[in-house]
Amino acid sequence: MRASFDLSLYLVLDPVQCGGHDAAIAVARAALEGGATLVQLRAPEWHKRAWLDLARALLPITRAHGVPFVINDHVDVALAAGADGVHIGQRDLSADIARQLLGPDALIGLSVSNLDETANAQTLAGVIDYLGAGPVYATPTKTDASTPCGIDGLADICTAARLPTVAIGGIQAHNAADVMRAKPAGLAVVSAICKAADPRAAASSLAATIAQSRI
Amino acid sequence: MRASFDLSLYLVLDPVQCGGHDAAIAVARAALEGGATLVQLRAPEWHKRAWLDLARALLPITRAHGVPFVINDHVDVALAAGADGVHIGQRDLSADIARQLLGPDALIGLSVSNLDETANAQTLAGVIDYLGAGPVYATPTKTDASTPCGIDGLADICTAARLPTVAIGGIQAHNAADVMRAKPAGLAVVSAICKAADPRAAASSLAATIAQSRI
Repeated sequence: MRASFDLSLYLVLDPVQCGGHDAAIAVARAALEGGATLVQLRAPEWHKRAWLDLARALLPITRAHGVPFVINDHVDVALAAGADGVHIGQRDLSADIARQLLGPDALIGLSVSNLDETANAQTLAGVIDYLGAGPVYATPTKTDASTPCGIDGLADICTAARLPTVAIGGIQAHNAADVMRAKPAGLAVVSAICKAADPRAAASSLAATIAQSRI
Repeated sequence: MRASFDLSLYLVLDPVQCGGHDAAIAVARAALEGGATLVQLRAPEWHKRAWLDLARALLPITRAHGVPFVINDHVDVALAAGADGVHIGQRDLSADIARQLLGPDALIGLSVSNLDETANAQTLAGVIDYLGAGPVYATPTKTDASTPCGIDGLADICTAARLPTVAIGGIQAHNAADVMRAKPAGLAVVSAICKAADPRAAASSLAATIAQSRI
């Protein structure tokens, strides 16, 4: 379990959306300068050698910002890169196995999309660190995603969950304040930063919205 | 490095081609009874939890036959399942990393498709155990495969390689004897067994062709 982490503005970095390896590094750096508090690498179209090359380039940048860096799904890439942890889905290797392979200090998150999965996740309280709840809205960036839970479904999950929960799925500048009303620990975004003309400004604006929603 | 292994009839088990989890187990068992000497699990369409479930079901069967069982690409699945090793491609995690994660006793194979990749693989002689050379023929089962090397290209690779080399790609009963003329250590097949009406008979017939070609 990770001693401390901040889910407020969770960047899911999709290097294809960013425009490739170099562009993804630039987006990550800009997002961190703008206030991203956690970075996850997710590149479903890429082979693992390209994941690892990018992960190794990103790690010193996230470290310099004191922000955790996790890998989507691939525990082997996380091990090879020395990343801070993984984010796993319901059909990936189980949380128990991820914890066993990554050790006690890794940061491990698990996706949940409904109350049943949230209830199951409660049994993993000593194994996982946080939940990713969603998709809140339908999203074209994850074609195998579950049915959207909506704001009400998200609020139900956040109320039921005993672990910190970050909302994900279709979150953009225009709906960020709405999503925060469901009281997640933070917002995870993909295209809202990866495809932004100015990723630093996009992150900064989202961070301000999130901070404002907590007042 | 693995003390001993036999590449003669190398089954690449694709559970989707077999017809699912249960069918894949039946195919593997039949292929082993028919003379398969090595089994690799490759399920590119599947999530890792399904890979792991199948790998755990297959391992006691391959063990009972004294045949190594390796996982395509996913070192984390191999670790979680306690498989005998992995087979990696040129764009997967590198052989060095796979060896580091899996330890000294794992069986590690590397795909090569031309003489350049074969020459690079020579530098890994202490890290990998064997080469998979191909595709010999074009194949619909691997959509991201390299240009086919043909029988002559295969023969060149087998001559250049200092490691045992198994041929792969479009190998079927009708061309198995032709491919063996290039002097590989054995033949890797996918659909020739996975899609066979009688996988045991298909394996047995291929094993006989391979044995005959060595006389």
